Amino acid sequence: MDPIYNFSAGPAILPKEVLQQARDEMLDWHGSGMSVMEMSHRGKEFMAIAEKTESDLRELVGIPKNYKILFLQGGATSQFSMVPMNLLRGKTTADYINTGQWSTKAIEEASRYCTVNIAASSEDANFTYAPAQDKWRLNPEAAYIHYTSNETIGGVEFNWIPDIDPNGDVALVADMSSNILSRPLDVTRFGLIYAGAQKNLGPAGLTLVIVREDLLGMPIPGTPTLYDYQIHAKNDSMFNTPPTYAM
Amino acid sequence: MDPIYNFSAGPAILPKEVLQQARDEMLDWHGSGMSVMEMSHRGKEFMAIAEKTESDLRELVGIPKNYKILFLQGGATSQFSMVPMNLLRGKTTADYINTGQWSTKAIEEASRYCTVNIAASSEDANFTYAPAQDKWRLNPEAAYIHYTSNETIGGVEFNWIPDIDPNGDVALVADMSSNILSRPLDVTRFGLIYAGAQKNLGPAGLTLVIVREDLLGMPIPGTPTLYDYQIHAKNDSMFNTPPTYAM
Repeated sequence: MDPIYNFSAGPAILPKEVLQQARDEMLDWHGSGMSVMEMSHRGKEFMAIAEKTESDLRELVGIPKNYKILFLQGGATSQFSMVPMNLLRGKTTADYINTGQWSTKAIEEASRYCTVNIAASSEDANFTYAPAQDKWRLNPEAAYIHYTSNETIGGVEFNWIPDIDPNGDVALVADMSSNILSRPLDVTRFGLIYAGAQKNLGPAGLTLVIVREDLLGMPIPGTPTLYDYQIHAKNDSMFNTPPTYAM
Repeated sequence: MDPIYNFSAGPAILPKEVLQQARDEMLDWHGSGMSVMEMSHRGKEFMAIAEKTESDLRELVGIPKNYKILFLQGGATSQFSMVPMNLLRGKTTADYINTGQWSTKAIEEASRYCTVNIAASSEDANFTYAPAQDKWRLNPEAAYIHYTSNETIGGVEFNWIPDIDPNGDVALVADMSSNILSRPLDVTRFGLIYAGAQKNLGPAGLTLVIVREDLLGMPIPGTPTLYDYQIHAKNDSMFNTPPTYAM
């Protein structure tokens, strides 16, 4: 049968060459006698896979050394909680740009942990545009500014990166689940970037976080251990068993 | 090459027939023209897989209708937080049985959310035995009693289920990550059972929770939405994108 090109929301088509390689290695990865899914995540074979995944991504995107690359579970939805839990850092408010369904979900979750300032919204036109930055009403007391670089439901994409001083007190945070790696990316403009893997990176079950290391280590009280970025950063994303198949 | 039999801690050997089937279906699941990893989790193909996974497990174990079966992410480590966050239900203390490394991790995490009463421990003999129930010092005010039915590091297994009245106020909770499905299981003796998939069920990245439905719906304030069992129960584990490959 001819392959189906599924571009719909949620999991999407993967490169045929990747699936063929996964198929060919399913019962024996590189002569190890094991599937990747059968290996200890503490063993030298899987450690090599994990290290290569990180170094390939770091080279491809050009991610500086002062940014940690984390491979987590839970999808972008987990990040809706983890971002405020980790990045408030003693502050009590955050700026959010609302451009549609995914922004709205992020705002709802953040509202449980801080005062959310909707700095800009395109709700007035049924979420059909990305508000220009000169219309944003930013709060200088905000811990961070969050935006969704592409909204899969409404189809609204930012074709520009907000101009926020990376050396300032307010970190720029982006949910890039559905457009990451679709073009070159200047990571240094951001404090934190996150993306569920299933749109642009790989299979569902893996979540990528790229975070500047000075933002780590100040989670709010009650943050579950697995929701503390610093724990994962200190353990090279191996604090607990990672989703081995997805790397 | 002959297959390697990996029984070590963490991910372990999978049935050869399962890997062969995954291999054969990698580029085209049942004539759909897609890999399971490429399907929308809202599509009829994947919905059928998820429903069959649940109904097969319900039939195999004999799980009554008043127990929800949840397929989550995060491994047993996520459950170390989710159990107290959801099962305290207004109470402030829980009983834990300490039989080794995994119990200790569960206790450390629960201690962040409630007063933990170590009702019994085998630390006095370097975690080499399961304390007999007549030695347990249970607290009648406890919200639940947690034990680890098998400790992979120390090799201590309970070959009996604690005798706790299932109709009482104290729910019995077990981390069964490394011995679930190794024998028949009377689910009705428990309030909640959890297991990371990678030892006895499937690949890493999937976490099974079996929970009596009357225990749901009372998470502590600040519980991340994804850590609320009720959210997953109401959405048939599809509140967010599940780890599709692992089911």
